[in-house]
Formats: sequence, structure tokens, C-alpha cells
Amino acid sequence: MKRTSLESARCPVARSLAAIGDWWSLLIIRDAIDGVSRFGDFQRSLGISKCTLTARLKTLVSLEILKMTPVGTDSAYEHYHLTDKGRDLFMVVLSLRQWGEDHCFRRGEKHSILVDSKTGRRIRKMKIVAQNGRSLEPWAVSVQKAGAR
Amino acid sequence: MKRTSLESARCPVARSLAAIGDWWSLLIIRDAIDGVSRFGDFQRSLGISKCTLTARLKTLVSLEILKMTPVGTDSAYEHYHLTDKGRDLFMVVLSLRQWGEDHCFRRGEKHSILVDSKTGRRIRKMKIVAQNGRSLEPWAVSVQKAGAR
Repeated sequence: MKRTSLESARCPVARSLAAIGDWWSLLIIRDAIDGVSRFGDFQRSLGISKCTLTARLKTLVSLEILKMTPVGTDSAYEHYHLTDKGRDLFMVVLSLRQWGEDHCFRRGEKHSILVDSKTGRRIRKMKIVAQNGRSLEPWAVSVQKAGAR
Repeated sequence: MKRTSLESARCPVARSLAAIGDWWSLLIIRDAIDGVSRFGDFQRSLGISKCTLTARLKTLVSLEILKMTPVGTDSAYEHYHLTDKGRDLFMVVLSLRQWGEDHCFRRGEKHSILVDSKTGRRIRKMKIVAQNGRSLEPWAVSVQKAGAR
């Protein structure tokens, strides 16, 4: 399957992955959420080549996930900020974080955590919530195909 | 940055992406969540080559995200099911779905939806929730580095 067929899929998961389904993009978005905005700071944080970073940032700007503010003539001084569409990826980054916390560290191994800035307390695990506010288990939900309504 | 340095990162987002950060893997997991279990059914659903699918399934089994049940000698008849670790990726797939619903379809364009199987009603948008149950905006949370506790 080519990227184009992912983009034209009726499935929102496939469409999202067509846009942001590579880990450089998601790590750039993670850093932008954490307040990184300068080309050079992304480069240092990610240990990524200038060329790869330029290409990924360009794609994220063309997808309107990031917006670019040029500062002078040197690309190393450009600033990048999340658009509203980009900020909405917070939940994707958060879900990756919570799964990683649960499954990608050995017992006792340290990792960063996400806290409520006001209280310093860890935020809750994400839940699937029905319209009436009940929590649902994954097996209690189902996909309704596009034509089924 | 190499995949190995992603794996050794202190950041749970980076670790998750090292494991499942390619879209074939996430589409396979999406299909497994939707009940697909047979090699041939994954292949038909994804339009993926037998070779690529074999490699991705092997990786997902080695990561203990899927478990394999051989049926006879032909790989086309093997069955794959999510482990608990794999099932926990539901929230990642859901977050990708909800972002895709909001940002990857034109107004009026049809897409599949996720419903509470009991009521047939759409499930709620995911939220960031503090320990005391309050909803938080993305800018009201912050990352506490591994060494900071």
C-alpha cells in the first residue's frame, strides 16, 4: 500500500498515520509541545542531521501542523510553533507516553513523567469514555464503517 | 539518531516509537483490535506484500505485542492475537483516530466512527485528566525529567 492510498482511506487512523506516521515527525512534535521552537534546539535535542530535520520540518509546515517564523536569513535561526492542528496531537504523544511508561521500562528503571504543572502530581491514565461518562473497555467499542450511517 | 538510542532514551514517547513507530505496525495493530487474526486477512485488509507483512508480524511477536498460533505448516494460516501489552495500544490507535477525524477529512466527507457497542453512540473525545478528576489543557501539564525526583 502506498502512502497515497493511506491518505485516501476512509479510516481516520490511516489518515493520521499518512500525515505523522514516522517517528522523527512525532519526536519533533513532542519537542514542540515541550517548548522547543528553534531549528538548532530541535537538532540538538534529537541528534538529527540538518538535512533530515529540514525535510521533516518542511513537511510538518506543509501539513499545517507547525508554522514557521523566519528570523534573518539563516535557517538555523528559524522558529517553529505548533498550530491548533499540531497542538491537538498532544493526545497522540500522551498515549505513546503512557504505553511506553507501562511497557518499555524495566521495573525500577527511571523515566520522565507528565505532571499537572499546578499541583506537581502525575496526570491520570487515559480512558475510553462513553457519551454517558462511563469508562469502557476496548472490547466494548466497535468501528462503524463510513457507509453504515 | 539510531533506533537503539531511541530505545535507550529516558523518554517513554521515544521508547514507544522505537517499538511501534512505523505505520505498518500500527495498521496491523489497528486491524488486530478490530478482530483480524489470520495472516491472509491482514494481507487483504492492508494490501501489503507477504514479505513485508511477515517481517512486521515477526517484529510484533518478538516485542510481545502479538502472539502467534501456528495452524498447520503454511504461514498463510497462522493466527495472530494481541497480548495484554498489545491491547494497551488501543489508546494510541484511538488518539490517532480522533486526531484524524478532526483534521484529516474535508467537511462532510464520510469516515468510520468508533461507537459504544451497547448503545451505538459515539465515544467521547479523549481528555487529559488530573489526579483530582479535573480536565487539563495541554499547556497546564509539564514533563518532569527522570532525574528530577
